Amino acid sequence: MKPLVGILMGSDSDLSVMQESAKVLEEFGIGSEVHTLSAHRTPEAVVEYIEKSEAGGYKVFICGAGGAAHLAGVVAAHTALPVIGVPVMNKTTAGVDALFATVQMPPGVPVATVAINGAKNAGILAAQIIGAGDGEVKARVVAYKAKMAKDIKTKDDELQEKGFKKYLEENGMIWPL
Amino acid sequence: MKPLVGILMGSDSDLSVMQESAKVLEEFGIGSEVHTLSAHRTPEAVVEYIEKSEAGGYKVFICGAGGAAHLAGVVAAHTALPVIGVPVMNKTTAGVDALFATVQMPPGVPVATVAINGAKNAGILAAQIIGAGDGEVKARVVAYKAKMAKDIKTKDDELQEKGFKKYLEENGMIWPL
Amino acid sequence: MKPLVGILMGSDSDLSVMQESAKVLEEFGIGSEVHTLSAHRTPEAVVEYIEKSEAGGYKVFICGAGGAAHLAGVVAAHTALPVIGVPVMNKTTAGVDALFATVQMPPGVPVATVAINGAKNAGILAAQIIGAGDGEVKARVVAYKAKMAKDIKTKDDELQEKGFKKYLEENGMIWPL
Amino acid sequence: MKPLVGILMGSDSDLSVMQESAKVLEEFGIGSEVHTLSAHRTPEAVVEYIEKSEAGGYKVFICGAGGAAHLAGVVAAHTALPVIGVPVMNKTTAGVDALFATVQMPPGVPVATVAINGAKNAGILAAQIIGAGDGEVKARVVAYKAKMAKDIKTKDDELQEKGFKKYLEENGMIWPL
Amino acid sequence: MKPLVGILMGSDSDLSVMQESAKVLEEFGIGSEVHTLSAHRTPEAVVEYIEKSEAGGYKVFICGAGGAAHLAGVVAAHTALPVIGVPVMNKTTAGVDALFATVQMPPGVPVATVAINGAKNAGILAAQIIGAGDGEVKARVVAYKAKMAKDIKTKDDELQEKGFKKYLEENGMIWPL
Amino acid sequence: MKPLVGILMGSDSDLSVMQESAKVLEEFGIGSEVHTLSAHRTPEAVVEYIEKSEAGGYKVFICGAGGAAHLAGVVAAHTALPVIGVPVMNKTTAGVDALFATVQMPPGVPVATVAINGAKNAGILAAQIIGAGDGEVKARVVAYKAKMAKDIKTKDDELQEKGFKKYLEENGMIWPL
Amino acid sequence: MKPLVGILMGSDSDLSVMQESAKVLEEFGIGSEVHTLSAHRTPEAVVEYIEKSEAGGYKVFICGAGGAAHLAGVVAAHTALPVIGVPVMNKTTAGVDALFATVQMPPGVPVATVAINGAKNAGILAAQIIGAGDGEVKARVVAYKAKMAKDIKTKDDELQEKGFKKYLEENGMIWPL
Amino acid sequence: MKPLVGILMGSDSDLSVMQESAKVLEEFGIGSEVHTLSAHRTPEAVVEYIEKSEAGGYKVFICGAGGAAHLAGVVAAHTALPVIGVPVMNKTTAGVDALFATVQMPPGVPVATVAINGAKNAGILAAQIIGAGDGEVKARVVAYKAKMAKDIKTKDDELQEKGFKKYLEENGMIWPL
Repeated sequence: MKPLVGILMGSDSDLSVMQESAKVLEEFGIGSEVHTLSAHRTPEAVVEYIEKSEAGGYKVFICGAGGAAHLAGVVAAHTALPVIGVPVMNKTTAGVDALFATVQMPPGVPVATVAINGAKNAGILAAQIIGAGDGEVKARVVAYKAKMAKDIKTKDDELQEKGFKKYLEENGMIWPL
Repeated sequence: MKPLVGILMGSDSDLSVMQESAKVLEEFGIGSEVHTLSAHRTPEAVVEYIEKSEAGGYKVFICGAGGAAHLAGVVAAHTALPVIGVPVMNKTTAGVDALFATVQMPPGVPVATVAINGAKNAGILAAQIIGAGDGEVKARVVAYKAKMAKDIKTKDDELQEKGFKKYLEENGMIWPL
Repeated sequence: MKPLVGILMGSDSDLSVMQESAKVLEEFGIGSEVHTLSAHRTPEAVVEYIEKSEAGGYKVFICGAGGAAHLAGVVAAHTALPVIGVPVMNKTTAGVDALFATVQMPPGVPVATVAINGAKNAGILAAQIIGAGDGEVKARVVAYKAKMAKDIKTKDDELQEKGFKKYLEENGMIWPL
Repeated sequence: MKPLVGILMGSDSDLSVMQESAKVLEEFGIGSEVHTLSAHRTPEAVVEYIEKSEAGGYKVFICGAGGAAHLAGVVAAHTALPVIGVPVMNKTTAGVDALFATVQMPPGVPVATVAINGAKNAGILAAQIIGAGDGEVKARVVAYKAKMAKDIKTKDDELQEKGFKKYLEENGMIWPL
Repeated sequence: MKPLVGILMGSDSDLSVMQESAKVLEEFGIGSEVHTLSAHRTPEAVVEYIEKSEAGGYKVFICGAGGAAHLAGVVAAHTALPVIGVPVMNKTTAGVDALFATVQMPPGVPVATVAINGAKNAGILAAQIIGAGDGEVKARVVAYKAKMAKDIKTKDDELQEKGFKKYLEENGMIWPL
Repeated sequence: MKPLVGILMGSDSDLSVMQESAKVLEEFGIGSEVHTLSAHRTPEAVVEYIEKSEAGGYKVFICGAGGAAHLAGVVAAHTALPVIGVPVMNKTTAGVDALFATVQMPPGVPVATVAINGAKNAGILAAQIIGAGDGEVKARVVAYKAKMAKDIKTKDDELQEKGFKKYLEENGMIWPL
Repeated sequence: MKPLVGILMGSDSDLSVMQESAKVLEEFGIGSEVHTLSAHRTPEAVVEYIEKSEAGGYKVFICGAGGAAHLAGVVAAHTALPVIGVPVMNKTTAGVDALFATVQMPPGVPVATVAINGAKNAGILAAQIIGAGDGEVKARVVAYKAKMAKDIKTKDDELQEKGFKKYLEENGMIWPL
Repeated sequence: MKPLVGILMGSDSDLSVMQESAKVLEEFGIGSEVHTLSAHRTPEAVVEYIEKSEAGGYKVFICGAGGAAHLAGVVAAHTALPVIGVPVMNKTTAGVDALFATVQMPPGVPVATVAINGAKNAGILAAQIIGAGDGEVKARVVAYKAKMAKDIKTKDDELQEKGFKKYLEENGMIWPL
């Protein structure tokens, strides 16, 4: 499967979050490639990668980073393709720093920002973007959404049947930890 | 020019911000349509509009809203196309409320969020999304970026020539008010 | 007991928080119904539910959601009944995102917002709203508040008798972990 | 018209915001009374007022305050009726202080909080609360919402007819001031 | 030892924080009394307590509360004595809500606010306030500060002697937990 | 009138805020002295001033500063007297920076913090602190609070007499500018 | 005067803020060069400039940017010289976004961040950095600090002489507008 | 190895964070000295230390503190050398308080602020500052950055070889903890 999406992150400590993009793209039958490439520590490698993959027919980049999250912006600076940014939460500021550093881009260089740690949604958004120009992919997104709706209804049916007390108990759900 | 992008906002008070999306799309030669449709006040009209325009071959929606900005999320709930959200600043919370309400979407329903009041970037992002599946549009984005870079360099040349004092004076730039 | 209050949440992961609304309504002898229905994943089911339950004589809706919490707003868009919103805390932004997304509603479509994770208070508020038009329910709210005051006084009496050191020790209270 | 809603504020400097509650209640044909009574400067007068008006058949209180906004909480402490809180923005913290001080009430004493400066919505919510137990008032809320939807559609029709450029120009809308 | 300081909190869940006020006052030889009294759940008891203790010669009140922390403000409304407020951190908003609700008091009714969970400093501040009018107490504050300075220097001496690696190891200090 | 309160600020740009402390102390018949002394630019002068004024019988210090507001903390480091901190709002962060920098003091060195720009309350708090050890001053605080309550009631009477529309109009109150 | 400091900003709209760095460096007799070069719009030009100026013997870079302020980080990625970052306030988020995007750099690539809009301090810090390796420059910093202290004392003398009322009046200082 | 960098912290509870400055300076072959000295509890000792170490040829100070973090500012007030500030996260406000209290310094007294808990970067920045005037040290910084880039590339090679699933599994990385 030829990759259409480049998934980049600044450090392998972001991988457990960012893998969700790759996984959901797999579900959509869209090839992707996962790389650790830092805007701050390997800037030339980032530029090289963008050029190579753009030439190779990639359609979208997904970039995850925490703190002063510059990776998505740096990638957006070097490509005319859509760039999706995933602000990654770190231990010191609840992800708001990464959110601001990803979303508040200056006029001319947008980054399509998703929720803090929203790597799964980044993958779905990439599928939607590819689907905007590819009817078959779009059909898979439609199916995905239908299944998602069905799952919630199934859970609600279970909830109605059991009542919330039994439902919580049987599913081992207690709050807060 | 057949419209490919639907630009929606909850109230005409957002229009002076959101018009920038329409204007920049015009520069890219991409047709768009501007509507006031409220997620909270005309929910059925929103759904109707999405269905109609999706059937009509639209590729992207851009939604601007302030405060508890739900419009982009509601649109995203009803379409498999990519939805771009513009958090609009209002007078009481500096736009952070709209940013959170737009970007923090749950798994399954992404909104591609741009900066607070970033309507121009929303238009550019829409062009990039369309360009991912349309080489001609992509070429226009590449040209746009090149022109932008040239403009900055021209300004820098002027700055070098005049020195910053004269530059500020001649351009009537004083800070802060 | 005929249900008067619909308690909705976007995902069953909110159930351990939201169950407190149902429990406290039980204490007030007010019937309620608990559903998982997502503004973003099952929008039509939400609308259907509101219409059905409004026809069935429901008086209040309680809606809990986290992140870009749109559920309460979407419900408020479709009903003339009072809608109570519970911002649910998630792991990435301390609930402030859900608070803003719930409370900052535009003119015309209010959501009666309670504290972050304040599902118990949502239930009490629902009882107060019903009590505004039903003397018997109001009397139960009055009794509830009297009991609450008595409980605090009992604790204070125990605190005076034992002194704070013994009180802490006997109640196994240590802060912070 | 016998008043059913008490509108309280801590200082007459909040009156230009809070008057919107009174005005919209007038539109619903619901009587209200406006008072300046401070939780911090005239605490006894607050308590007295609540008792008197509760005895007189009031159904809802609306309380507006800025900064460490305690008024709604103090009123809620003394009544079993629903209390609506309006966080009022002041010059030093953008209203977030008042929002937290109004909404984050402890278990047992809810305040139904609306948006920062959301006095109009507070009035509408009061009407919805009264409407929950009074079919005629509820009908007026339904009508109000229908009119609101129609107004937006009228504006959208005008926008479609004129196009956004002419619309902005003719309505004198420029942003930002 | 006749109590000069009333230490109040809205719930016994604040006691493990607030006990530090009582403990440090004990070190200063100043009597205090600890009570759970809620601004929202037992408002009359609060007023009664203030009047009684003011008549009994109390000099300062210390009030701890979380969330929409109104206790200090309510006490300040009923006394001309200085009131110290301790914003208590809770699980949903990191204490900033309590900080705003405590410190942002309107003109005329100050609350002397200390750090989030700063109950120990509240006790020291109470001693400083009493010491402003009582030379003996002031002398104890001076001695306390001297001891504190000496403790830090002793630790620094140990640090110099051992070097930071050994110091960390021997004191079992690892970060972050 | 012998000064009992030292009012310090880091820059004369804070004077228009901080003068309110001096003015309200004048109303209480308490002498004060106003100085510009910077924790960062004239640290030795600060220390000198504290020692001199403490020797001269001062009872309280009031310190106002913006941004990384260290003045109150630095003064508190050098005195055993109570120190009141006024966070001053500046043009770039709405005063929250100054609030945190003033209130979040470490154990052992409290600063009695008032609201952002709350210089008037700082003066009243100083009077309350002096009043804790001086019955005559306390009596003046009691009288001040009584007058304040009366003023609010007078305004409310005017409001009742005129109705809110006429009241707003006659007092030229419009919101927001 | 050979330039030792490169002052960069992403847009000439930051120039009225950033000029203060150049001006204060002039006072220290340190040459600097001012450029508009955008991390996002002219990334190659940024890299080129760094290499050229580093070869030319530059000692420090000062970078100013607003919003998702990446410029300082991008420069720091390409040089081993110290990089000073100035977060520039924009109209939509009070500069906190730029502060986070500048200061929260990952391990390995520090940016020496100064206050929001703190361009003057950036210049002084550059002088201190150069002064750390050049006794003459350090002496000028010492002199600068001494003059600054003297200026404050002169103002305080004037304040003592005139009293605060006359001082405010004569200096036309009123707050707030 | 003669120390060139003084590493100061207000309490030994900050040592587990601040030790990273010392460790990285060791890697650069730069001597440093670690001290606990509090701006609030041992102000004279701070001043003494600065004077002594400045006389001894120190080049940079690194200061770490949490909460109302004044240490860096106080040190900056007494020296013409560059001062690096490390905001240390504490348990009650996620480090934002310390960040504001460190970075928002007034004109004339800069503090070179690094990320929350960014002690490692503080050490690297100190090396960069020393390197600005010492070619040998600069060469070591260049080498350090090269190694850092190589490490990332090595990790990326491993990631490409194994694929992200195996990589996560073999490195025991699961998110969230």
